[in-house]
Amino acid sequence: MDIKEYINELGVHAYAASRVMASVSTNKKNSALDAIAKEIVKNKDNLIKINNKDLQSARESGLESALLDRLELTEARITAMADGLIQVAGLEDLIGKTSEYIEQASGIKVGQMRVPLGVIGIIYESRPNVTADAAGLCLKSGNATILRGGSEAIHSNQAIANCIRAGLKSVGLPENAVQLIETTKREAVGELLRMSEYVDVIVPRGGKGLIERVSTEARMPVIKHLDGICHVYIDDDADTEKAISIAFNAKTQRYGTCNTMECLLIARSRAKTILEKLGPMYRDKKVEIRGCEESKKILGDIKIATSEDYATEYLAPIMSLKIVNGIDEAMQHIDKFGSKHTDTIVTENKSNADRFLREVDSSSVMLNASTRFADGYEYGLGAEIGISTDKFHARGPVGLEGLTSQKYIVLGDGNIRS
Amino acid sequence: MDIKEYINELGVHAYAASRVMASVSTNKKNSALDAIAKEIVKNKDNLIKINNKDLQSARESGLESALLDRLELTEARITAMADGLIQVAGLEDLIGKTSEYIEQASGIKVGQMRVPLGVIGIIYESRPNVTADAAGLCLKSGNATILRGGSEAIHSNQAIANCIRAGLKSVGLPENAVQLIETTKREAVGELLRMSEYVDVIVPRGGKGLIERVSTEARMPVIKHLDGICHVYIDDDADTEKAISIAFNAKTQRYGTCNTMECLLIARSRAKTILEKLGPMYRDKKVEIRGCEESKKILGDIKIATSEDYATEYLAPIMSLKIVNGIDEAMQHIDKFGSKHTDTIVTENKSNADRFLREVDSSSVMLNASTRFADGYEYGLGAEIGISTDKFHARGPVGLEGLTSQKYIVLGDGNIRS
Repeated sequence: MDIKEYINELGVHAYAASRVMASVSTNKKNSALDAIAKEIVKNKDNLIKINNKDLQSARESGLESALLDRLELTEARITAMADGLIQVAGLEDLIGKTSEYIEQASGIKVGQMRVPLGVIGIIYESRPNVTADAAGLCLKSGNATILRGGSEAIHSNQAIANCIRAGLKSVGLPENAVQLIETTKREAVGELLRMSEYVDVIVPRGGKGLIERVSTEARMPVIKHLDGICHVYIDDDADTEKAISIAFNAKTQRYGTCNTMECLLIARSRAKTILEKLGPMYRDKKVEIRGCEESKKILGDIKIATSEDYATEYLAPIMSLKIVNGIDEAMQHIDKFGSKHTDTIVTENKSNADRFLREVDSSSVMLNASTRFADGYEYGLGAEIGISTDKFHARGPVGLEGLTSQKYIVLGDGNIRS
Repeated sequence: MDIKEYINELGVHAYAASRVMASVSTNKKNSALDAIAKEIVKNKDNLIKINNKDLQSARESGLESALLDRLELTEARITAMADGLIQVAGLEDLIGKTSEYIEQASGIKVGQMRVPLGVIGIIYESRPNVTADAAGLCLKSGNATILRGGSEAIHSNQAIANCIRAGLKSVGLPENAVQLIETTKREAVGELLRMSEYVDVIVPRGGKGLIERVSTEARMPVIKHLDGICHVYIDDDADTEKAISIAFNAKTQRYGTCNTMECLLIARSRAKTILEKLGPMYRDKKVEIRGCEESKKILGDIKIATSEDYATEYLAPIMSLKIVNGIDEAMQHIDKFGSKHTDTIVTENKSNADRFLREVDSSSVMLNASTRFADGYEYGLGAEIGISTDKFHARGPVGLEGLTSQKYIVLGDGNIRS
């Protein structure tokens, strides 16, 4: 069978399974999640053995160590996968929930019912745990899934997908609710991205290259995450201690995450006092600062930031810094250089806080809190399929609700339109 | 200036205006809508004069009469445009509204704030009233708009756009919040559809050809409406009178609308009684029936429906008809031939009603009501930018809320992540 036919067949099966999954009871979905978790735990040794095969090939082909680390399935990671599924079983089931019905002038009663999106395609790189995490969220939200993991992880992913399908089967649900693309050929991705007839949304999880390819080629909507150029703005009326602690935490608590602060903006009136304390703290952590001329006068030996620096997501112990006139210049800078991800104001001034929260056009806007909180778990979503930097459909951390839609329900008693 | 530069300049201006519009107060937006309505009424004679120019050219180039009718601006239509704007001013402003804030384990409080999408592109055919209707909805929802109307209506659209811009200016809002593409060159549409940097969503309003072109070429999300192949299913437990009245109304109240019934499904146990009454009613209205063999036995002289008939949106006094075993066969038929637009069950059986409402995957699913109710005004949205047959973002009739997004708001008091 050629690739096109193969992917099309997956699509046909996924669509059929999605029609069944849409009206499965909460209990049955939760039993499936439990059964899958048990299968994964039961097959722990086997999963580790198979994963070692992937690891060995990856090492032989010279995969870099960060990627090897992501590829590895340790006992702890396998347990975490199973625990994650149990946790998703514990989340509220949104499917079938209806809004209030409102009676209209014509006498009809109109409400909305929460429904699944249908078929969700997930394209990810070399982390095999995504296979279980993503499948679990799609299952709980009543969707069917087509998974395409990185080729380095193909055997690990197959083994996990087998556990998932065994779990589904054991409770009488269609195995095709979760399908893995079992060829590592690159053109399979292209076929998947063109199959808008059967795939309702694509979620790419991985580096920028993957996300750009998916956005360009996909013929269906994409829930995606591009840059995270996050700012902390320390306002004229900031509390000094909060300002220092937030600016330090937002940069240094983890460097490689999308919600890490990449640029610090400080109101001129507070720059000297605060930078004299913050500068040495960053220095101790070996964080490289690239700042404006004015901040160099305070901090001494730092690089001067270029426009490109202000537009860079470092994902590293490097940060930009700019002293600004006040809230207006800060918001202009964020509008020009930011990526609409997460931005924080530190202030005790209510009117400045309100303006910043209302006017900054980012998926998360914060007051007196570290940008590092921008995360589905921290927001109480219970789980996260990804963070969306788009405004359409889902914005910010995307949990179960982002994998659903609504339909209108009209209740009549023989009503006709006149 | 070449077309690409021209469209790009509109994009830059629209983006800048959208950043202003996002935080304009409700009062100011409503004053703008009132001022625009007044400008339109004040310029009534001039609008009719300019519209006559468009009508004359259109007649000379042989535009068909239905399109000429849509193109015409009568005194009544101009008043309706102005009234529509006043009505939109009366609708609730969603922008800036926040959900409940929920305190998380870390101490941060997390909520969501309703925000505009940003820049909305509207592409429409020869109805100049869309210029005011669409601009009004986008304005009220805090968005900037780029309008591209049919070339036959170019002078009428320019004249209306001038009223809009004068109204915006008179209350101190940026005129560029509403811009009309003033060239009739076809490539301008292509440039607009590629400008994902500045345009957040495209709404095509018009025939299938337009919508297909927009869906294929657009690099940004599209709120669109494809087919409306709507069904009425008369269940075994239907009330005879309700069944007849709904099936008749859903087909004959208007033929050319997307929510008109195109196919009637009847449970076998009820077919004879109901068709013996309904058949003559349709015949009196000169509705052509294309049915299954079994229905031909009851109705006599009708055409036999092909698979293609069941998949056709007639938009005319023609309908398909099929006698089915019961609810399961009805839902299978809808799943196979329907367009996920609007489908109704007529029944007094609660369990069948619940199954149909839950399992049929259409943007509107109804119980004992005519499909003709699927409409933003009938649903109480106050106005409608269009009906979406997609599941992503907005589904079914799209009012002001469909032109908005949400951002997360996080309130802290110096909170950092540990």
